[in-house]
Amino acid sequence: MNVVVLSRVLSPRPRDSQVRAMENTVTNAERYFGQFCSLLASYTRKTARLRDKADQLVKQLIDFANTENPELRATIRDFAEDLAKVQDYRQAEVERLEAKVLSPLKLYGAQIKQTRADIKKCKRVQNNEIKQLEKLEKLRQKSPSDRQMIAETSAQRASVDTNRSTHHLAETVDAFQEQKLKDLRRIFSDFVTIEMVFHAKAVEVYSSAFQTLENYDLERDLQDFRAKMRGIYGHSEARPLTDTNTAPSVPWPVASQSVQSTMARQGEEAGDEEESEADSVEEIPLEDLKGQQRGHRD
Amino acid sequence: MNVVVLSRVLSPRPRDSQVRAMENTVTNAERYFGQFCSLLASYTRKTARLRDKADQLVKQLIDFANTENPELRATIRDFAEDLAKVQDYRQAEVERLEAKVLSPLKLYGAQIKQTRADIKKCKRVQNNEIKQLEKLEKLRQKSPSDRQMIAETSAQRASVDTNRSTHHLAETVDAFQEQKLKDLRRIFSDFVTIEMVFHAKAVEVYSSAFQTLENYDLERDLQDFRAKMRGIYGHSEARPLTDTNTAPSVPWPVASQSVQSTMARQGEEAGDEEESEADSVEEIPLEDLKGQQRGHRD
Repeated sequence: MNVVVLSRVLSPRPRDSQVRAMENTVTNAERYFGQFCSLLASYTRKTARLRDKADQLVKQLIDFANTENPELRATIRDFAEDLAKVQDYRQAEVERLEAKVLSPLKLYGAQIKQTRADIKKCKRVQNNEIKQLEKLEKLRQKSPSDRQMIAETSAQRASVDTNRSTHHLAETVDAFQEQKLKDLRRIFSDFVTIEMVFHAKAVEVYSSAFQTLENYDLERDLQDFRAKMRGIYGHSEARPLTDTNTAPSVPWPVASQSVQSTMARQGEEAGDEEESEADSVEEIPLEDLKGQQRGHRD
Repeated sequence: MNVVVLSRVLSPRPRDSQVRAMENTVTNAERYFGQFCSLLASYTRKTARLRDKADQLVKQLIDFANTENPELRATIRDFAEDLAKVQDYRQAEVERLEAKVLSPLKLYGAQIKQTRADIKKCKRVQNNEIKQLEKLEKLRQKSPSDRQMIAETSAQRASVDTNRSTHHLAETVDAFQEQKLKDLRRIFSDFVTIEMVFHAKAVEVYSSAFQTLENYDLERDLQDFRAKMRGIYGHSEARPLTDTNTAPSVPWPVASQSVQSTMARQGEEAGDEEESEADSVEEIPLEDLKGQQRGHRD
């Protein structure tokens, strides 16, 4: 038996490589899950900031709408509402990422700590066995038969301990790996689902927003604007300028008329351009959007 | 005529309110378009940061995949590729927001400057008219008839100038307003289209990513892991421990066997849990995602 025991002390110990493999499994999980966690936390925070920025835009759009004529006001308000809806979905995305992706990833810290403690314990037991074997070796060289027998019993006990703890460690690491794979799949499936739902909702809401902008009657709005401007002219026309007839050079009623006719002409042009604008929007290709120049941005 | 001219000098001048209304139109546009521009620029930057963060996650996922067994490696790589694809679309989104939303909004700076200059010119001409009228008033009070006539001619000339410049201003502001409305509609339509296309592409890619994760054979992966761990045991079994038979207390082949049976048991449990895990992923509601607690975040 001594030869066997010694060969195990002196050769690269198999139980060592086993523990090392288990340690690697845990260390790897710790490293990568830690990184996934911090990157996804950052991703979530940046999503929240995007939401905040869009919320500010919504606010400005509503403020702006209130300064505009009814037609544009209604359009911009509807558009702002849709944009706000997308941010509501983004908010739901953020909350769900926190609950279903970040929280379980954070739980890994505790789980890894426990597995690490188990490995440490196993290593301690192994070291104890080595010490017992070294003691035995020394005694064997000095060969007082009774003390050697005691040492051999002690070494055997250490072996049984190591057996038990290695067994326990193997179970622990196996359970850890299984949990890791399951959690990994679940967490990333949840991530994908959360993102997918958000993007699907965004498509839905933006489709409605696009329709809102398409339905915007620009011509009517321009007519409102011109009427308002004419209102200001009209307002001044209503002033008690009783001597107007005797003053043919009073400039602004003339200006008013010519501006009106200018506006009418521009209105016609606007109609044509409006058509072509609408076309150009629809011409934006829905395919082939993949960033061709993407390599440049790194 | 003097009475008329004077009434216009002394009353709130209509041409003044006209210019004020025009100024308001331009000031308003300057204010809000400036804010839209800076908010959308910030939105675009934050989108770019989200892309960067996700790119880092892709990198880590690929690194992690390389440390795992073939089954998980292939799954994580495919998933990382899909995630990278979404970032390609996000990059296209960023580029298109810059080209089709931010650039035209920035052009407003120049356009508003020009309109501002036109308004300033008109005001200068108006001020000139007022000065001429004031001069006329003084002369009228002193009433030396020939100088009065000269002054009246000068006032008339000023009126014609004002007429011309107010007319020009009205045309300019009208054109400005028309362009503003058109650009507004076009810019926000482009914004919506860009966002819509991005989100639609993201849904498409994430659907494929979800399928990738669904198809992941966790059981096979666990078996690989167990085989690898057994390989380490097996490796140590192959060591030249020729005296093994005389050493019944050698612990690790025993440990190996019991670990194996433990693993088999856990494997069965894993099968059940795997089923329920998969169910729970599909149970995530695709509707009713609107952030209920959204009020809290402000």
